[in-house]
Amino acid sequence: MNSEKRDFSVIGTSVRRVDGADKVTGKARYAGDLIIPGMIEGKFLRSPYAHARILSIDTREVEALPGVIAVITSKDFSDVSPYMGRGKNRDHPIIAVDRVIFAGQPVAAVAAVDRATAEEALARIAVEYQELPALIDVEDALATGAPRIHEFAEKNICFQTELVKGDVESGFAEADEIFEDTFEFPMIYHYSMEPHTAIAEVDSDGINIWTSTGHPFGVRQEIAEIYHYPLSKIRVHVNFVGGAYGSKSGGKIEPLVVALARKAQRPVRVALNVAEAMVTCRRHAVQCKLKTGVKKDGTLIAKQAEIYLNTGAYAETGPIVTGRTLTRILGPYRYPNLKINSYCVYTNTVSAASFRSIGGPQTAWATESQMDIIAQKLGLDPVELRLKNLVKKGEEIRPKLKPLDADLAKGLKLVTDKLGWDGALSKTGRGRGVGFGTTDPGAPLASTSTVHVLADGSVVLLCGTVELGQGAKTVMSQIVAEELSVPLERVTIRPIDTAFTPFDRSTGSSRSTTVMGKAVELAGSDARRQILELAQEHFESPEEAITLKDGQAIAGGKKVSYGELIHKHFAMQGGELVGRGYAHSGMAPTPANPLFWEIGIGAVELDVDQETGEVHVHKYVTAADAGKALHPLHCEGQDEGSAMMGIGHTFYEAYQFDSGQIINAGMVDYKVPGFDDVPDQFDSILIEDGNGPGPYGAKGLGEGGIIPVAPAIANAIAWCSGARIKTLPLTPEKVWRAIKDAGQVASSGLRSRT
Amino acid sequence: MNSEKRDFSVIGTSVRRVDGADKVTGKARYAGDLIIPGMIEGKFLRSPYAHARILSIDTREVEALPGVIAVITSKDFSDVSPYMGRGKNRDHPIIAVDRVIFAGQPVAAVAAVDRATAEEALARIAVEYQELPALIDVEDALATGAPRIHEFAEKNICFQTELVKGDVESGFAEADEIFEDTFEFPMIYHYSMEPHTAIAEVDSDGINIWTSTGHPFGVRQEIAEIYHYPLSKIRVHVNFVGGAYGSKSGGKIEPLVVALARKAQRPVRVALNVAEAMVTCRRHAVQCKLKTGVKKDGTLIAKQAEIYLNTGAYAETGPIVTGRTLTRILGPYRYPNLKINSYCVYTNTVSAASFRSIGGPQTAWATESQMDIIAQKLGLDPVELRLKNLVKKGEEIRPKLKPLDADLAKGLKLVTDKLGWDGALSKTGRGRGVGFGTTDPGAPLASTSTVHVLADGSVVLLCGTVELGQGAKTVMSQIVAEELSVPLERVTIRPIDTAFTPFDRSTGSSRSTTVMGKAVELAGSDARRQILELAQEHFESPEEAITLKDGQAIAGGKKVSYGELIHKHFAMQGGELVGRGYAHSGMAPTPANPLFWEIGIGAVELDVDQETGEVHVHKYVTAADAGKALHPLHCEGQDEGSAMMGIGHTFYEAYQFDSGQIINAGMVDYKVPGFDDVPDQFDSILIEDGNGPGPYGAKGLGEGGIIPVAPAIANAIAWCSGARIKTLPLTPEKVWRAIKDAGQVASSGLRSRT
Repeated sequence: MNSEKRDFSVIGTSVRRVDGADKVTGKARYAGDLIIPGMIEGKFLRSPYAHARILSIDTREVEALPGVIAVITSKDFSDVSPYMGRGKNRDHPIIAVDRVIFAGQPVAAVAAVDRATAEEALARIAVEYQELPALIDVEDALATGAPRIHEFAEKNICFQTELVKGDVESGFAEADEIFEDTFEFPMIYHYSMEPHTAIAEVDSDGINIWTSTGHPFGVRQEIAEIYHYPLSKIRVHVNFVGGAYGSKSGGKIEPLVVALARKAQRPVRVALNVAEAMVTCRRHAVQCKLKTGVKKDGTLIAKQAEIYLNTGAYAETGPIVTGRTLTRILGPYRYPNLKINSYCVYTNTVSAASFRSIGGPQTAWATESQMDIIAQKLGLDPVELRLKNLVKKGEEIRPKLKPLDADLAKGLKLVTDKLGWDGALSKTGRGRGVGFGTTDPGAPLASTSTVHVLADGSVVLLCGTVELGQGAKTVMSQIVAEELSVPLERVTIRPIDTAFTPFDRSTGSSRSTTVMGKAVELAGSDARRQILELAQEHFESPEEAITLKDGQAIAGGKKVSYGELIHKHFAMQGGELVGRGYAHSGMAPTPANPLFWEIGIGAVELDVDQETGEVHVHKYVTAADAGKALHPLHCEGQDEGSAMMGIGHTFYEAYQFDSGQIINAGMVDYKVPGFDDVPDQFDSILIEDGNGPGPYGAKGLGEGGIIPVAPAIANAIAWCSGARIKTLPLTPEKVWRAIKDAGQVASSGLRSRT
Repeated sequence: MNSEKRDFSVIGTSVRRVDGADKVTGKARYAGDLIIPGMIEGKFLRSPYAHARILSIDTREVEALPGVIAVITSKDFSDVSPYMGRGKNRDHPIIAVDRVIFAGQPVAAVAAVDRATAEEALARIAVEYQELPALIDVEDALATGAPRIHEFAEKNICFQTELVKGDVESGFAEADEIFEDTFEFPMIYHYSMEPHTAIAEVDSDGINIWTSTGHPFGVRQEIAEIYHYPLSKIRVHVNFVGGAYGSKSGGKIEPLVVALARKAQRPVRVALNVAEAMVTCRRHAVQCKLKTGVKKDGTLIAKQAEIYLNTGAYAETGPIVTGRTLTRILGPYRYPNLKINSYCVYTNTVSAASFRSIGGPQTAWATESQMDIIAQKLGLDPVELRLKNLVKKGEEIRPKLKPLDADLAKGLKLVTDKLGWDGALSKTGRGRGVGFGTTDPGAPLASTSTVHVLADGSVVLLCGTVELGQGAKTVMSQIVAEELSVPLERVTIRPIDTAFTPFDRSTGSSRSTTVMGKAVELAGSDARRQILELAQEHFESPEEAITLKDGQAIAGGKKVSYGELIHKHFAMQGGELVGRGYAHSGMAPTPANPLFWEIGIGAVELDVDQETGEVHVHKYVTAADAGKALHPLHCEGQDEGSAMMGIGHTFYEAYQFDSGQIINAGMVDYKVPGFDDVPDQFDSILIEDGNGPGPYGAKGLGEGGIIPVAPAIANAIAWCSGARIKTLPLTPEKVWRAIKDAGQVASSGLRSRT
């Protein structure tokens, strides 16, 4: 069915969440709420050192402890692969082997009849360590003579990549001004509401796993590889997950929980606390050294960047994130000459993982901050500077990638109009900032879905997208209701059980509505086609004469319910129709990458308390290019949530280390934004140009909104206070010091501009 | 794919059962083995009277008993339908309302923290009854002036039906001899290894049921109707069931278990014992009054029958069984004139239900016994008499039904040759008997199946056929392996969960291999077609150039695994193909009824101890028309098991009543055959003419073998001892008395024939 000028029944309507009642009544069960008969509790013993040799682990006393069912060390992996990791990067031991290379690394694990016994057992495991020097920062890891964290990784480089276009040296030679700045973005934590929790049960012909993952099929793959089972024997169950943001992509704690269950021969649950989740994965800290050449009128001529990602102990998705920075450092701007080098660097810290817009906020922090430095220096309005350099719709952002599929100037105008932009400094002295997120989302293809029409006309959807809070169950149900012309209430979406639910690559990278949504749309329309065939037979009428509405086929004034059609087709004995849909490589025409461009735009108005350095955000406008907003309220919710998450890393968040150990792990010491941090005026705009490859023209969103927040705010601070800060977070102390450092010069400079 | 002259890889091979290891190791979990978190135990309070008014039920004391969670009486059904029952016959209250009409009827139910508490609670429920006269036998129920068991049922007739062909009175006028006999077949019990067991869990948006049913989708339908849920909200889970034979068709205890769980708001398990299962359902006792007119040469001219089925308290499947007797009383014989009247009669006994070949053994008991009475009288060999009257392949058995699809004479010859038939009395004085089962199995259409090919080439089958012990998991896996050209080990068949498993009408009435097997075959070939399409793209070759073998596509000396093809198709991100298959009304050309004729043939050689009446079965040969035996060993097992079940009702089984109560309920008092009862020589023959509508020409079997056993044995007894017995079972006492009664006359009559 074509999306053009179509009258939608439920698409585009902000229906009530299909899982809303379950959530507000507490009925929705998360992994930690489940009780599996015979289940016992597991705990991990973690290294206190960031780098140490393990001289010995003595588990004998613990194994004899009443209530202890299983104790695991690396010795328990002799018959299977002891390594996990994404794709080719299987460098990550499931449990430390001979040495630990970050503080918090599991060195042993225990399963016991209850948590208290498990905790007591941990305390009694005797581990003898020989501490070794630890490399926490990228500078340390890259320093000449630094020890290698992995034998195979020369200079501690996990991966490096380069993008070259034109000749950056000639570009600089042509430039009127050259700007060189270094920006720092710290390690931060995903902080989903639910820390990692998994239950595993192992028997001779299969493994059951109930887990808080965003990648049930990724976990299936990982466990199948490690423990040598066919995919059909690994059953991963997921229903509700309390947020993920990348922290639950691929196998995390599951391989070790399976090891415990395998040894215990009983179901074992491991539920991490926040401090443990913080040493399970995090966002990449990134240092960007930017050199940009500009003409006097603001035209960008050349850009050179060196990007260093602190990827931590193991590769995880580090190489993918590093690859993605090449595009993301560009922003949506046109550069005739480019030379970008990006380095993924091992350190003795917890491995970095995927995190909402991988490499996006970190690189935009640099590029969008520097844009305003340029504007200020050249005496240009930052909006004007951006408009001058914006890549146009259909124009190339980066060689060989799909051309831009959105009109950014139009979007920017919507945002600045909403904010009331008439300059970077308001008439009342407030600072204003603006920025873009223009990214090539992963959005990998590969989703299969089935839609089942039962003999009473009720409809069942099998779809492997995980409900992470984003509203996936609702939007997928809407698509099915739309395709089948049935009331939304008639559609039931099943929990994910990989024994039954067809394959989906993953939930994340802005792919679900676009890619899985397409598979669901096709499954629904396949079922619709079958109903139409039965209706044609029933009415003895051609398809054109038949209308489907509210679960009925209508022709020539006569009606028949889907249920009646199915009963008749199946000899009045019940029956069921199955529609199937695939999102496969055929969905993406060449060039396939990215499947679509994800666009976020942000603008802010704020003021700064010169006495305290405290920043007050008066207005924030965020815009997302939705293509077609299938559920506008959820789209806005995603985009606003993304911007709020950006406010978190802008003002508060950073891992803090002392001697290689994180000293602010936990809910009290690691602050995230709360309701007090919501801007006084907080607007979100959905741009709907039907330009997406997803159902009805939809494209992914939810990762764009986070990107421009920090630079827009830093720029606004700079415009109104003169304080230019290049490291996050923008704590009051840091702002206050920057204001002091900027002194009178900047201040008077600003005044002279207005 | 055509079955003609096809080289099969796994079809037709008696592979090891796919569930064999789970069963012999005790890993296979039946409903009674399951533990659902929070589960409590339910018990039913049953009426001691066959007919009584309930004056009062006082549950107050019990409700206050510590550990009692819920107490149920008919008052708890005020908001839902209190009636259950198959199809239109919803006359069966889930729990007694105001009166009880059979001994064993549930009048109250309790759910408590454990079984002991539940049992104590039952003992404390005070029920005041006013006993009423009970009608146990059909004669009592039909007697003039008998009270009505149901107000709506005049003369206690639940249903009656008639078959007329030609003019039976003219037929009798033409006959040389007329035979009039009355045969009795008692109530018997299914005696599956596992009594009925169910667990239910009810919450606001759905019901979960784990149950030992053969009809998961029938239970879903029943519960949905009673409790007003859409089908999509009722989730029935079944994996292994320990036999059914009709006793687990449709809702049995499930509606009442759901009622308990609904009130308890906790999962409730009810596990019946054998005595309780015996008052849950049974086989119809049948009385057949036969009048048959025959020419001197043995040609059958006319048949008149009055058939009375004791259907018990409620209709259940009584009307269906009664309808089926019209065909089944005919046997495979040609009658120019017919008048058959069949009556389904209510009595104050437990409701009769479906039971392996509904109405088959009871009517064949009459017809096949009388055939030998005729042969004896006319001085004909009973095999010759049968051959003279057999309906031929393609000829009509009964007007408007599909013509016979098997060559019975050929089958009979196979059986009698195997037995070494050279007359009804062997040279050593042993008796011989023979008989047919020629029935129109229900085998209703309506099955949907899906076959899933995963990205590592492993294959998953979703199929709603219940593994009752008959080998369904194995044969369905074989079909998938054959269609997809993969090794059998690569196919995993999932447990049934109606949340995910596509619809199947039921497991029973000889339909699974034929009807669901067809859906599975089509789902497999649909997946095969998709793999071939990917292979064509991959090899850039036409389909004809590609061979599929062992999970690989092969063309021009190059190989690619299914997994690689799927990965490539899904942009190297995993993926899954879904094949679907439907068995619907299009599967059966007109006339559609029966889908096929089910053929069983039996022959026996035995002798009788004249002093004790004990019968010793020396040889038994059973034959089944398999069409194509997909798993020969399982086919033989089904057919032999069916014959052994026949040996049970032939020699041992019958409900015995005293004052309306069953006095032999339980494993000790109700004898079923054991290994000692296996005939010394026990042969089974599979006839494979590829004449079935199922996959590869298969047709159903397993219900045919039970039919001829009792008359074949009774006939053999008559031939060698002169004792003609017309009521089952053939206990030694009954045989001894019959020998005495027959006296010298019959004995000398026999001698004169040899």
